[in-house]
Amino acid sequence: MRPRIALPRFDYAYVLTLCLLLLTGGCATVQTDPLPAWNGGKAKQTVVGFVAKVTTQGSPDYVPVPERIATFDNDGTLWAEQPMYSQLLFALDRVKTLAPKHPEWKNQEPFASLLKGDVKGALAGGEKAIVEIVMATHTGMTEEEFEVIVRDWIATAKHPRFGQLYTSMVYQPMLELLAYLRANGFKTFIVSGGSIEFMRPWTEKVYGIPPEQVVGSSIKTKFELRDGKPVLMRLPELSFIDDGAGKPIGINGHIGRRPIFAFGNSDGDLQMLQWTAAGGGARFMGVVHHTDAVREWAYDRQSSVGKLDKALDEAEAKGWTVVDMKRDWNLIFPFEAK
Amino acid sequence: MRPRIALPRFDYAYVLTLCLLLLTGGCATVQTDPLPAWNGGKAKQTVVGFVAKVTTQGSPDYVPVPERIATFDNDGTLWAEQPMYSQLLFALDRVKTLAPKHPEWKNQEPFASLLKGDVKGALAGGEKAIVEIVMATHTGMTEEEFEVIVRDWIATAKHPRFGQLYTSMVYQPMLELLAYLRANGFKTFIVSGGSIEFMRPWTEKVYGIPPEQVVGSSIKTKFELRDGKPVLMRLPELSFIDDGAGKPIGINGHIGRRPIFAFGNSDGDLQMLQWTAAGGGARFMGVVHHTDAVREWAYDRQSSVGKLDKALDEAEAKGWTVVDMKRDWNLIFPFEAK
Repeated sequence: MRPRIALPRFDYAYVLTLCLLLLTGGCATVQTDPLPAWNGGKAKQTVVGFVAKVTTQGSPDYVPVPERIATFDNDGTLWAEQPMYSQLLFALDRVKTLAPKHPEWKNQEPFASLLKGDVKGALAGGEKAIVEIVMATHTGMTEEEFEVIVRDWIATAKHPRFGQLYTSMVYQPMLELLAYLRANGFKTFIVSGGSIEFMRPWTEKVYGIPPEQVVGSSIKTKFELRDGKPVLMRLPELSFIDDGAGKPIGINGHIGRRPIFAFGNSDGDLQMLQWTAAGGGARFMGVVHHTDAVREWAYDRQSSVGKLDKALDEAEAKGWTVVDMKRDWNLIFPFEAK
Repeated sequence: MRPRIALPRFDYAYVLTLCLLLLTGGCATVQTDPLPAWNGGKAKQTVVGFVAKVTTQGSPDYVPVPERIATFDNDGTLWAEQPMYSQLLFALDRVKTLAPKHPEWKNQEPFASLLKGDVKGALAGGEKAIVEIVMATHTGMTEEEFEVIVRDWIATAKHPRFGQLYTSMVYQPMLELLAYLRANGFKTFIVSGGSIEFMRPWTEKVYGIPPEQVVGSSIKTKFELRDGKPVLMRLPELSFIDDGAGKPIGINGHIGRRPIFAFGNSDGDLQMLQWTAAGGGARFMGVVHHTDAVREWAYDRQSSVGKLDKALDEAEAKGWTVVDMKRDWNLIFPFEAK
């Protein structure tokens, strides 16, 4: 702080004015575009219009700050999910790392195919194969040990197409949207089908979303004393699948309030969007439509990852906001700007 | 605000100083006791000393704001739990209300005893009887319907001994402590064995703790479309018991960070306190010891409600802070002050 006693009188008035502006929030009247990576079409207008009406005191749509709950799917909504969910790529890497300790995997599917490099063959076993891979790689250690494993992987593993860290494969327009909502008093949550403990180690740094605002799928854990020190052991047993109809259940269980704003990108988000839409007052429901095969990927109704079919129909029928990635976003990944 | 233009020079400096104090948080140097209902003994000193050291920049014990997680048990820690948990009294009231629709209850325990006014007989069936009563009264409706039932009860039901609303049976020193922690950048959570949906309708108003910061026991719910409108139906199936070893599991599942501050009052809080104690850096573990039979109740090792035995031994052995209600609190319930 500059020594106050040496300031001439006009400086007092100037600093005082600055102080008052800061105190009264008057600085907010200096407007800059909070969503520069969004082109100025209908999607952006709808977002900005919604935020304006729910935050304007005296507006019939005004929503008090504590009720400004916004939920976001993660895979395909906040970060890329192609060619495969990042968590599955993590699990595949873990299988390779753990293989020396599991000689039996050489003759046991889905591990045998995986270790031969035949990912497609391994995943031919469908959900059962995926659950087996996840259980073999995500359980049997303490929560703290698993967190270290996730942190190490996420800090080093690179995306097969872009050669970027997975935490760089996030959508710049969504980072802006998260920050914009928070600047307007919203509490932002992730509601993802991914494992809660796969996301929490990095969501605060990458999205500004703290661990306690991450809702996801989970396994069971067990409290134990190990040499007098309490630990939570990760058990190979599913506890909750936070996908599809599980999303409103997860929202109810973790948040206990209905969102007024929700964003997804696939049929797994349909019930979250329906749940959000069914509340009283102003609502925003958004769907990211992957339409840009050049800068990202183009996929929807036929995709095995992030299938968007029923939710696209319902979004169109109900007038929800569908973001056309190619048309609506002038920047997709932050690294493109460099 | 007084018109600035008319102010003589010294007033500018005064207002400026005030502004700067507000901006820099310097007003905190104007000290008033944040915990007036706490007598100035060791318990209060330990709380204040802990908060000072974890919030002082440059202190070796400094904890960044996002990591300042404080968890509180509810029954017996934030509000009274005698002569019986409030939620159980709520369930008993519900049995009476619902009895006309359940003629079979006249010949079916634990309902038959209850309806004859024999609460002790009804609860003689132990945990099984309690679960039956809870399931019969807490499930079979939507989440929204249950919320209305809780709101109605909590707004009207009176405590049998004090004749006060249950939301008035809260501990003034703990209300002060919650506010004090929040003023120092802590995020305050409830971690209770009680049902999450029994607490959420009123914790924000009573404790300043929003629904998303309430962790508790839960039942399963099912997402359904009813005439096209999504609802969450409450199923008669336990999902999670947030008590004892369940508390660290609940904390991990909901919060995803280890608390640095935890307060409980019974053996059901022991593992939460152990879990908190086992983290690195400065920690605060507190236990409310009910020692005041005149103003509240005196009970510990032999009590069927809020038994405090092992946790009292461990608190004493480990040097955790044990609040002696009679000695340490000069006011227990807010209504005493009137």
